[in-house]
Amino acid sequence: MSRHSIRFEITRSCGGQGGFHGRVGRVTTPHGSFDTPAFMPVATAAAMKGLTPTQVRATGSQCILNNAFHLLLRPGADRIADIGGVHQFMRWDGPILTDSGGFQAFSMAQINRIDENGATFQSFIDGKLVHLGPESSMAVQQALGADIAMAFDDCPPAGDSIAEIARAARTLQAKDRTLRWLERCIAAHHRNDQALFGIVQGGTDLALRSSSVDATCAFDMAGYAIGGVAVGEGTMAIERVVRHTAPLLPADRPRYLMGVGYPRDIVMAVESGVDMFDCVLPTRNGRNGMAFTREGALRLRNAKHAEDPKPIELDCDCEACAGGFSRAYLRHLFMAGEMLGPTLISLHNIRIFQRLLLDIRRAIEEDTWLQFRRAWPCTNQAQSDTLDLHGVSDD
Amino acid sequence: MSRHSIRFEITRSCGGQGGFHGRVGRVTTPHGSFDTPAFMPVATAAAMKGLTPTQVRATGSQCILNNAFHLLLRPGADRIADIGGVHQFMRWDGPILTDSGGFQAFSMAQINRIDENGATFQSFIDGKLVHLGPESSMAVQQALGADIAMAFDDCPPAGDSIAEIARAARTLQAKDRTLRWLERCIAAHHRNDQALFGIVQGGTDLALRSSSVDATCAFDMAGYAIGGVAVGEGTMAIERVVRHTAPLLPADRPRYLMGVGYPRDIVMAVESGVDMFDCVLPTRNGRNGMAFTREGALRLRNAKHAEDPKPIELDCDCEACAGGFSRAYLRHLFMAGEMLGPTLISLHNIRIFQRLLLDIRRAIEEDTWLQFRRAWPCTNQAQSDTLDLHGVSDD
Repeated sequence: MSRHSIRFEITRSCGGQGGFHGRVGRVTTPHGSFDTPAFMPVATAAAMKGLTPTQVRATGSQCILNNAFHLLLRPGADRIADIGGVHQFMRWDGPILTDSGGFQAFSMAQINRIDENGATFQSFIDGKLVHLGPESSMAVQQALGADIAMAFDDCPPAGDSIAEIARAARTLQAKDRTLRWLERCIAAHHRNDQALFGIVQGGTDLALRSSSVDATCAFDMAGYAIGGVAVGEGTMAIERVVRHTAPLLPADRPRYLMGVGYPRDIVMAVESGVDMFDCVLPTRNGRNGMAFTREGALRLRNAKHAEDPKPIELDCDCEACAGGFSRAYLRHLFMAGEMLGPTLISLHNIRIFQRLLLDIRRAIEEDTWLQFRRAWPCTNQAQSDTLDLHGVSDD
Repeated sequence: MSRHSIRFEITRSCGGQGGFHGRVGRVTTPHGSFDTPAFMPVATAAAMKGLTPTQVRATGSQCILNNAFHLLLRPGADRIADIGGVHQFMRWDGPILTDSGGFQAFSMAQINRIDENGATFQSFIDGKLVHLGPESSMAVQQALGADIAMAFDDCPPAGDSIAEIARAARTLQAKDRTLRWLERCIAAHHRNDQALFGIVQGGTDLALRSSSVDATCAFDMAGYAIGGVAVGEGTMAIERVVRHTAPLLPADRPRYLMGVGYPRDIVMAVESGVDMFDCVLPTRNGRNGMAFTREGALRLRNAKHAEDPKPIELDCDCEACAGGFSRAYLRHLFMAGEMLGPTLISLHNIRIFQRLLLDIRRAIEEDTWLQFRRAWPCTNQAQSDTLDLHGVSDD
C-alpha cells in the first residue's frame, strides 16, 4: 500500500503503566529517518524564515513541515513539481511532512463556500477563487512530494461567537465529513513513495473523539493525527482531549498531535503516547524577540537585557548561545530592526525544542521521567494564552 | 605611535608601469590579517543584516566595516565598550574598521548646525540632539575598539541644487576643515591597539585633491583614504578623481577608497593603486533581490526566473549556488517575503565580491590582468546610476 511507504519502529514503550504512555521510536521515510517523539519545525512556504537548511539541520531537526495551502497559492504545486518536488525546491534532503491545507482553508476570512466537496476561498495573494477539497489536496500534496501527506479534514475554527449548540452541531458535522473525506483522500492518493495519515476530529467532546478514533482507525493508515486542537480552546481543554484520545490510537502507528505546542503541552502529550509534533512557536516567537529557555520565556526586547553580557542560556549549544552572542547584543538587534535578531533567536528556539525532545527520548529510554520534569521547569508552567498556534499567512 | 598598530606588507607591485599601479599585499591588525586589495562588507549596526559571523566568514571576508554613527546612536558606544568592544559585541574576531560617522552626520536631513567643531543633529532614533566632531568621533571609535579608525572628515553631500560656485567654495572649505580636524583627531587618539587613517577630500576638483593629498600625507598616518567619492557624482567623475588621487598617496601605506563600489569601480581603482574597499551594494541589493554575477546584474524578482532550475551562477561556490538553490526558489522567497531570500542572495553577492578580489590579487601576482578583465565582463560595464552608496539608516 502506498500509504505504508514509511516504517515505524518502537524501541521503548512504557505501555500505559501508571497512565504513562510515552514511547521512543523511529520513523523511516524515503528521505531518511527521524527519532520519535519528534518535533518538526514549520517551514510554511518552503522556507524556515531566515534560516538556511544547513542551519536548520544544525538545530538537530530531522523532519520539517510545509504548508500545502501556502505552496498551492504561491508558487503553485506544479511549479514545485517541475523543479523536482519540494525537497529539491527548498534543498532539504531529510523527511518532510505536508499538511493538507484544510485548516488554513477553513480559517481564511474570505471563504466563499464550504460544502461536501471542500472549501472555495479567495487567495490572499491575488484574490483569485481557489477550491480545495479531498481530491485537490491529494493532488497538491502528491505534486509537492513530501514523505508524509495528511488527509484533508474539516476543521472548523473555535469561534467564540458561536452558540454552544451550534458549535456542537458543527463539530459533529466536521467529524463525520472528515471521515467521508478520508475515504475520498485514500481513493485519490497513489504515490507509493508517500505515506498518508488520517486525522481524528471531534472538538472538545470526548465521546465524539472516541467515535472519530474508531471510524478513522478502521482505515489502515500509515499514521494517525489528532486534529482540531490548539485552535483557541485553551491549555486545559487541549490536555483533556489529548489525554483521552492519544491512547485510543493504534499503538503500532505514529501518533501526531497537529500544531501543538508549548513545551508543557508537548510533555503532556508525550505522556499520553503522542509521537510527532509541529508548531510555529519557536520561529514565530523568535521573530518577535521571545526566547524559550528551560526556565520559561525571555523577552529580549526588554530594557533589562540592555547591558547583560550573558547568552540566552549558559549551557545551550545552539549557534546563538554557544556562539557567545550576549542578551545585550540580541536586544540591540531587535531594537535596530536587524534580521539577524530573528535568525539567532529562531536558531536558539528550535534548538531548545530539539533538546527538549532529546531529553524526553532519553528520559523514556532510561526511565527517568520525574528527574526530566524537574530539569525542565518550563514544562510545569501553564500557558495563559489561548493562541491559535497554526496561523494562516504568518508561519 | 598608536596609529601604527597595523603592519602593511606589499608582496607584489607593478609600480605604475603602463599606468598600472595595482599591488598585492597584506594588512596585519591586532585581530589578524587581511589580504589586499580587500573588500570589506558593511555591518552598519554591528550586524551583517541576516548573516551570522560564521556565514560572513564563509564568504571569504576577512575584514568588515561598522558605522560609528549608527552605533553611537544605538546602542551607544559606552554600552558596547562595557560588553568588551565591538568584536566581542558582534562576535567577529577578525579585523574591523569603523568609519568616523562624519559622512552620515553630514548627510542627515535633521542637521541643526555644522561648524568648526563638527555637526549637531537630531538622532533619527529618538530625536535627541547629538554632537559629533573630531574629538567625540575619536572617543566613540576608541570605545568601539575597531582595529582601524577613520579621522573625522567634513564630507558635504553632492547637492545638485547647489550652484557651481557655491559648491566649489564648500568643497574648498571641507578640504581645509578636514585637515584641521585631522590634527585634532590625532591629538585625541590614544589607543595603541588601533590604527588611525587620514582622509583626503577635494570633491571632483583635481587640484584640490592634490593639495589635500599633500597636506594630509604630511601627517604620518597608518593609512590614507580617499573620501567624498560616490556621493552622487557619477561613475566617470569617480574614475577621474581616483585615477588622479590614488597614485599620489604614499606607496608604503594602505590606500582606502571609501564607499566604492560596483565591480567596475573597484577594478578601476585597483588599477590606480587602491588597496581597500567597502560598499553596501552586495547586501543592500541582495535584500532587494538583485544578484551580482560575473556577467552583470540579475533581478530575481523578474517573472522570467519563475521556472528556472539553475542557480544564480553555475560555477559559484557560495552557499546559495553550491547549495543548489534554484533561481525559481530564490524568486519564490522574494515573492513570499521570506527573509531567507535576502540572506541567500547577500551570501552570494558578498561571495562574488570576494571572488572578484581573489581574482584581482591573483591577476596582479601572475601578471594576467587582461585575461582577468575578460573573465569578468561586469567590470567592463558602466553603471548608469549615480546612487549614493554610503547610505544613512539603511545599511
